[in-house]
Amino acid sequence: MTVSIIPVEGVPEVREGDDLAALIAERAPLEDGDVLVVAQKVVSKAEGRVVNLADVEPGEEAASIAADGDPRQIEVILRETARIVRVRPPLVIAETRHGFVCASAGVDASNAPEPGTVVLLPEDPDASAARLRDRLRELAGAEVGVIVSDSFGRAWRQGTTDVAIGVAGIEPLLDLKGVRDSTGYELHATVIAVADELAGAAELVMGKTAGVPAAVIRGVDAHGEGSARELVMPPDRDLFR
Amino acid sequence: MTVSIIPVEGVPEVREGDDLAALIAERAPLEDGDVLVVAQKVVSKAEGRVVNLADVEPGEEAASIAADGDPRQIEVILRETARIVRVRPPLVIAETRHGFVCASAGVDASNAPEPGTVVLLPEDPDASAARLRDRLRELAGAEVGVIVSDSFGRAWRQGTTDVAIGVAGIEPLLDLKGVRDSTGYELHATVIAVADELAGAAELVMGKTAGVPAAVIRGVDAHGEGSARELVMPPDRDLFR
Repeated sequence: MTVSIIPVEGVPEVREGDDLAALIAERAPLEDGDVLVVAQKVVSKAEGRVVNLADVEPGEEAASIAADGDPRQIEVILRETARIVRVRPPLVIAETRHGFVCASAGVDASNAPEPGTVVLLPEDPDASAARLRDRLRELAGAEVGVIVSDSFGRAWRQGTTDVAIGVAGIEPLLDLKGVRDSTGYELHATVIAVADELAGAAELVMGKTAGVPAAVIRGVDAHGEGSARELVMPPDRDLFR
Repeated sequence: MTVSIIPVEGVPEVREGDDLAALIAERAPLEDGDVLVVAQKVVSKAEGRVVNLADVEPGEEAASIAADGDPRQIEVILRETARIVRVRPPLVIAETRHGFVCASAGVDASNAPEPGTVVLLPEDPDASAARLRDRLRELAGAEVGVIVSDSFGRAWRQGTTDVAIGVAGIEPLLDLKGVRDSTGYELHATVIAVADELAGAAELVMGKTAGVPAAVIRGVDAHGEGSARELVMPPDRDLFR
């Protein structure tokens, strides 16, 4: 079955308190079974997860890491950090409170509401996705899955890909354990991170500057009940802490 | 613009020497500008990159790593390995000769031609992609980009996603350096691994057992001249060697 990735275009600049689901539903032809991928940046803005750097007093650790970067921004990053994974000043790879490992603990100055502000990840991206899903059911009458996505770098590979940091109505991992291939070989180690592939696919139409903060994916059956926390490698299986 | 991901269905079991481009062209509605994503497994099979484990004599290192795994399979993995990154017997995370970091140096027993055989990565996946591209131009008269994809695990995250290990007629990285967002902030650190997102998107229709070894992606402009080697993090920038 052909899968379609439909950009949600014409969404205006999102501000704190905006009804993001309404801004999307007015512009997206949602149907039952669709997956809506929404960029973290607009979710965080609607939730007011924005910090004005003028209000931030950097501590000593932030100052020492900052190098030629802004120590106030590093301070915000450290406040969002549960565990520092690697530092190459001013780059910080951190584990967030949610368990995600990413650059700057997800703190980002690009596409921020105005110069001098930075945007944080949502407090609870699964809950953000669930609220959007409930509101879209109300507004559009459609039962959709929702993914909140962000652009993460990867170990060993250049460039970012979008991955899922929050999901609702989605089974993020497709587990083929026990399934057999055509020669009868059991695919015992194959678990596919479908939610991450959906997030990356949506990025193909969202871009970074085009003002397309969401996309509808039609034709993929990824529906179920799950949490993006399932995408986090448990510490005892993580060879790269 | 809506992006479509079209599965290439009904491809028979691929054997050494098969004209893979012909098997695909007969079943895929290719148009100029399409991206064809082909699973590494069928590319390797067509190229005869298959080892019969009965012919393999494991060395001491393989025997010590194997634990309850098959030491002959570990021996094949070590022969494909340029550098061992992590070992948790019988799991080996290795850098291949191409520079890719992945489980088992890409050696895989699933979907192998028959029990007791394993499939290796192509010798030169960019060259494999280029040959397919040239042959598809001949057969279908269409100028397409080609990506050879494989399922890789990731540090810190559960599950595999498909990524690009070979490309032809594709610019694998989209570099937004110097591009400004809507507030004028320069996106100085944003490079998107488009080829990996395309490979992951194709996986959504390819699956692991469904006999769909390729997909056509229409509506994405990723065309250019590049190599999948560009997706490898240079050692001096790699914080996770």
